[in-house]
Amino acid sequence: MEPGSDRERAADELRPVTITRRFTDMTPGSVMMEAGRTMTLVTAAVERRIPPWVESGTGWVTAEYSMLPGSSPHRVRRDRYAAGRSREISRLIGRSLRSAVNLRAMGEMTVNVDCDVISADGGTRTAAVTAGWVALHDALAWAAGEGITVSDPLREQVAAVSTGLVAGEARLDLDYALDAAATVDMNVVMTGGGRLVEVQGNAEGEPFSREELDELLELAAAGIDRLAAAQREATGWTPPR
Amino acid sequence: MEPGSDRERAADELRPVTITRRFTDMTPGSVMMEAGRTMTLVTAAVERRIPPWVESGTGWVTAEYSMLPGSSPHRVRRDRYAAGRSREISRLIGRSLRSAVNLRAMGEMTVNVDCDVISADGGTRTAAVTAGWVALHDALAWAAGEGITVSDPLREQVAAVSTGLVAGEARLDLDYALDAAATVDMNVVMTGGGRLVEVQGNAEGEPFSREELDELLELAAAGIDRLAAAQREATGWTPPR
Amino acid sequence: MEPGSDRERAADELRPVTITRRFTDMTPGSVMMEAGRTMTLVTAAVERRIPPWVESGTGWVTAEYSMLPGSSPHRVRRDRYAAGRSREISRLIGRSLRSAVNLRAMGEMTVNVDCDVISADGGTRTAAVTAGWVALHDALAWAAGEGITVSDPLREQVAAVSTGLVAGEARLDLDYALDAAATVDMNVVMTGGGRLVEVQGNAEGEPFSREELDELLELAAAGIDRLAAAQREATGWTPPR
Amino acid sequence: MEPGSDRERAADELRPVTITRRFTDMTPGSVMMEAGRTMTLVTAAVERRIPPWVESGTGWVTAEYSMLPGSSPHRVRRDRYAAGRSREISRLIGRSLRSAVNLRAMGEMTVNVDCDVISADGGTRTAAVTAGWVALHDALAWAAGEGITVSDPLREQVAAVSTGLVAGEARLDLDYALDAAATVDMNVVMTGGGRLVEVQGNAEGEPFSREELDELLELAAAGIDRLAAAQREATGWTPPR
Amino acid sequence: MEPGSDRERAADELRPVTITRRFTDMTPGSVMMEAGRTMTLVTAAVERRIPPWVESGTGWVTAEYSMLPGSSPHRVRRDRYAAGRSREISRLIGRSLRSAVNLRAMGEMTVNVDCDVISADGGTRTAAVTAGWVALHDALAWAAGEGITVSDPLREQVAAVSTGLVAGEARLDLDYALDAAATVDMNVVMTGGGRLVEVQGNAEGEPFSREELDELLELAAAGIDRLAAAQREATGWTPPR
Amino acid sequence: MEPGSDRERAADELRPVTITRRFTDMTPGSVMMEAGRTMTLVTAAVERRIPPWVESGTGWVTAEYSMLPGSSPHRVRRDRYAAGRSREISRLIGRSLRSAVNLRAMGEMTVNVDCDVISADGGTRTAAVTAGWVALHDALAWAAGEGITVSDPLREQVAAVSTGLVAGEARLDLDYALDAAATVDMNVVMTGGGRLVEVQGNAEGEPFSREELDELLELAAAGIDRLAAAQREATGWTPPR
Repeated sequence: MEPGSDRERAADELRPVTITRRFTDMTPGSVMMEAGRTMTLVTAAVERRIPPWVESGTGWVTAEYSMLPGSSPHRVRRDRYAAGRSREISRLIGRSLRSAVNLRAMGEMTVNVDCDVISADGGTRTAAVTAGWVALHDALAWAAGEGITVSDPLREQVAAVSTGLVAGEARLDLDYALDAAATVDMNVVMTGGGRLVEVQGNAEGEPFSREELDELLELAAAGIDRLAAAQREATGWTPPR
Repeated sequence: MEPGSDRERAADELRPVTITRRFTDMTPGSVMMEAGRTMTLVTAAVERRIPPWVESGTGWVTAEYSMLPGSSPHRVRRDRYAAGRSREISRLIGRSLRSAVNLRAMGEMTVNVDCDVISADGGTRTAAVTAGWVALHDALAWAAGEGITVSDPLREQVAAVSTGLVAGEARLDLDYALDAAATVDMNVVMTGGGRLVEVQGNAEGEPFSREELDELLELAAAGIDRLAAAQREATGWTPPR
Repeated sequence: MEPGSDRERAADELRPVTITRRFTDMTPGSVMMEAGRTMTLVTAAVERRIPPWVESGTGWVTAEYSMLPGSSPHRVRRDRYAAGRSREISRLIGRSLRSAVNLRAMGEMTVNVDCDVISADGGTRTAAVTAGWVALHDALAWAAGEGITVSDPLREQVAAVSTGLVAGEARLDLDYALDAAATVDMNVVMTGGGRLVEVQGNAEGEPFSREELDELLELAAAGIDRLAAAQREATGWTPPR
Repeated sequence: MEPGSDRERAADELRPVTITRRFTDMTPGSVMMEAGRTMTLVTAAVERRIPPWVESGTGWVTAEYSMLPGSSPHRVRRDRYAAGRSREISRLIGRSLRSAVNLRAMGEMTVNVDCDVISADGGTRTAAVTAGWVALHDALAWAAGEGITVSDPLREQVAAVSTGLVAGEARLDLDYALDAAATVDMNVVMTGGGRLVEVQGNAEGEPFSREELDELLELAAAGIDRLAAAQREATGWTPPR
Repeated sequence: MEPGSDRERAADELRPVTITRRFTDMTPGSVMMEAGRTMTLVTAAVERRIPPWVESGTGWVTAEYSMLPGSSPHRVRRDRYAAGRSREISRLIGRSLRSAVNLRAMGEMTVNVDCDVISADGGTRTAAVTAGWVALHDALAWAAGEGITVSDPLREQVAAVSTGLVAGEARLDLDYALDAAATVDMNVVMTGGGRLVEVQGNAEGEPFSREELDELLELAAAGIDRLAAAQREATGWTPPR
Repeated sequence: MEPGSDRERAADELRPVTITRRFTDMTPGSVMMEAGRTMTLVTAAVERRIPPWVESGTGWVTAEYSMLPGSSPHRVRRDRYAAGRSREISRLIGRSLRSAVNLRAMGEMTVNVDCDVISADGGTRTAAVTAGWVALHDALAWAAGEGITVSDPLREQVAAVSTGLVAGEARLDLDYALDAAATVDMNVVMTGGGRLVEVQGNAEGEPFSREELDELLELAAAGIDRLAAAQREATGWTPPR
């Protein structure tokens, strides 16, 4: 029952990715994303009101991230959501998805993006960003069909991947076993056009050099490029020109 | 996005049922059950210790039930688990599954059954019992393979279904629309052999007669009989003789 | 200090019941009910507003149930109310009492019914329903006197009792010792006219047959009939005709 | 339903007091004390372990104070216990009762004193101290009978009363109406021998002079003298000589 | 690292006191008070709204008291604020400061006084009252400058000190070592004019006599007189005549 | 009372920094750091036990970060610590400080680093890292003096600073006004030797390019170099060779 690792995968190779839209039909967006043994279900629902701190007439995108108790061989407690790490990840996802949209073009509504990890083998937060963009796309399309949004608020794609230094080697898309062995791990969120949205790298063990940082960022950029292609294939979306 | 109802279904007809085992591979039991538009993921994991109130050398089965935020058109808050109703349902599932096993034959271990509703169109707690039995079956089989249990602790099947009075008519397996219209609703848990484990019937609106109760119990018995057949088909299990 | 049991009591015999109205004078309804060694204090207070989910112009009845720390030889923690089981019982009491009234005839007000167990020797939740009806009666009478309600919203009586299978025998009104020995226990709520409001039967140990269920329901009906007589005697209430 | 006030009572007169022992029989001490319209139920139970900060071989006395929701015309929320004021009062009661006993003579056990206000018309915390001493007496007598304590740990009586300045006049034993009108209110805990255990006086409105303080303390001493007599009458206790 | 005690200090001698105004500049009042090794930072901020229970057009003063984790050699947990004792102290500070002002002359605003103990060597709550008055003075002066208050709401000074019986001797201004050795400890709050605002004396160990109480109150009065002089020196305030 | 900004400061200039050691004497490390109007008090205390997940014989460093209510013109609620953002920052500080020490050389003890923001004008989390290293240094020196650590566990310096893009220009050490205007902000933690420990950059508004990232990292490296010099000056520490 211990999560295994696919050690033959090349250092710059993504795990196999599957994106399934309309996994459920209770919310306008509902996306199951599989990346190797990691499975994440992301739903996106539209609410016709906005939080008090958002300017009236403007839209908002918010996210919550949580792991199902059975998503890991070591049972995850249900009350863990409140405990901090899930909130930190939730804020990262929310910020990332907001950078993909023009909030003023959304109209006064909130898109609630819920990311629930069904099976956790590493890279769950980055999968939530990548799948979250697809769910957000579907929710905004639904809102356009309902006449809530007038002009198209989706400016560009946003996708994410993890990288890390494992035994001195830069690796793309860490599964659980690679993550446990990494001395540096980094989560990178980028737009479809290759600009940076979020960079979070940390070294609990061994500090790293600027050259290592650069190598990790280049691996990430190549991986995100392929994930953005998978998003476009799943949705048929093309960037506005 | 409002849940619809399949009104052509006969009063004594179950919604179509699909039971998928090994939906994930992080826990020994992992079952996705679909009943119409209701989808419930149940995992069962084994822990080699028992709660303090359980007699040493004995086993225990416990359950937790929760709804994903996106399982309903009206977003379910994540902190709702603590708020009461989920705990009430969790205890019902735990009691029901414990009645299926010989706790003394389990050995000193706990099976943690986690029921997460992916899509909620009525009948989620009864689906959790029915799918929970399959996940429990798989977890016990795994524990036997690991040499944790010696003799087979699984005594019999347990499955559950809802019934109710809708517009004066007794109906089997209420979806959301039927449930909203019901004046009486009842959840029934039975063994594969047709004995009662749990009966919970209540009438917030209009009190009901003994004759109506009898009719609802008969409908439930017939439905549970078919669900137990689906459990046997999924698992290949046969009752001990 | 361990609660004893009155084993000479016949299988179909209630424990001696005393209902004292106006036990305190801070709230319109204040009822102390003793059933053997079980003592429950129920107050009912009127608030001139309703919860947000209740239709405007309509009334509401809600209940909270809790055990005093010293009500049991094993001290009950004060924070237990939030922990689940008390809420489950609170909802049962609230549903049961609401079935006794015509909410539309109440006017826009809430009756808050608070049930505090002073001494717990089994059957506390059913005592709370039975005493709760008396407190509700007094609160509605007070509200009528104040001109809050115009027509009489009290449609009928509601009372409750427990039954169970103990050593294979169907027993009425389980005290703690009988409850601990029961393989099946059932709580039944009925109207004064003998119709069912709530049936909750469960078998953690041994599943039960339909015949056993029928026997338990008949015992309960006979017991509730006598409790309803005690309610009428205490209040002087007569059913509307 | 508003609490009234008995204005004819003399400034130095206590409200009528009734002390009922063995109100319930689930705990060794169980005392209902009525002082005018104030009713407080105090139970005292013995636990054969002590908190971690208490020296091994020594005893401990702890108290919890809470108001029932229906004890006041303005419903008291159940979660209020945690909110602060109840804890402050609980600590006052615990400190006061500990001053009555020789903790080293108690043996290794804790007496849990639970004070639940059934009807709140002022003076509930001082009633809890006075009734608490009676419940503590009964719990210690029970523990002596069980052979838990060897020598008698009860050194002296402890009782309490409130006083205050109302319209410039010093008044004894404030009910709710007097308390609401008081510019200074003071709670005083004393031993049966007339020594001070606790003095808590405060003036939110108008500061007070040393002479006024002295007058309030004399009134309190006279009142506590009569309450201590009522304690001795209820229990038959006589001070060790 | 254990807090030491300055045993040569005379029984009626205060520890050296320093009052620093404008310690930070984020709030109108910001006062660091040192009394021996005790350091307390008190800020006072003005909010243009009042709690719901305060009469419209009137002002309010509220306080919160907390200890920094590193203020004591035994780390103080951050969640301790909610746990009760801090709230009890917060209420004492709030009541004391309110007695210094004419709430009706304040205008509709709340002064939030936050007392954070930086270094805890005894007497922290009384230091918070004494420093709190200075911070309140500065906040009210700021509010007058902003035109929020019209007439001057500050009626008089309020300051506080602790006293106690240590080895039978009445001592002023207990540090941690004296406090730990005291059989009686008392906190006294008085006005600049020598009237009493709050007296809290308690004897967990040994009850005390009226004569001892008198002696403690006289010591306190002398100490508060000197603290009030320090407040006037720091602020230049003079009592209205 | 609104925090102002020192706009004349050059883009690559730090705010004036003051590091005061032994600000209090209750804990081995106690450091007040001022950076412009930002003031942070960091204490470091030693506990002779370790969390359960740390290997026995090894040491641990943990941190908690919180803001005092009066540290900002907009009062910060005391319960905010639990709410998420403070925990995220606490983990960042803890990870950063752990990278400075050889946990195996520490011996079995925990250093608890508490960071309390006294005045918040931007850059509080990075100040907490920089001041935290000084407090950690002092706590480890104390532990060495007590004979708890044998060899020196402090491997290198760790310091932090913020940078960001403001109106298209890369700026060092953002105060509140700059932070509010930034389209990208980044927190960087580095060792004294110039290697990276943590990089957290995010763009809620406008995504950024690799070139902009590089420019921000270079600014940060220069700033951290000067902060590390200030740390060495305050402590006299020299890197092991």
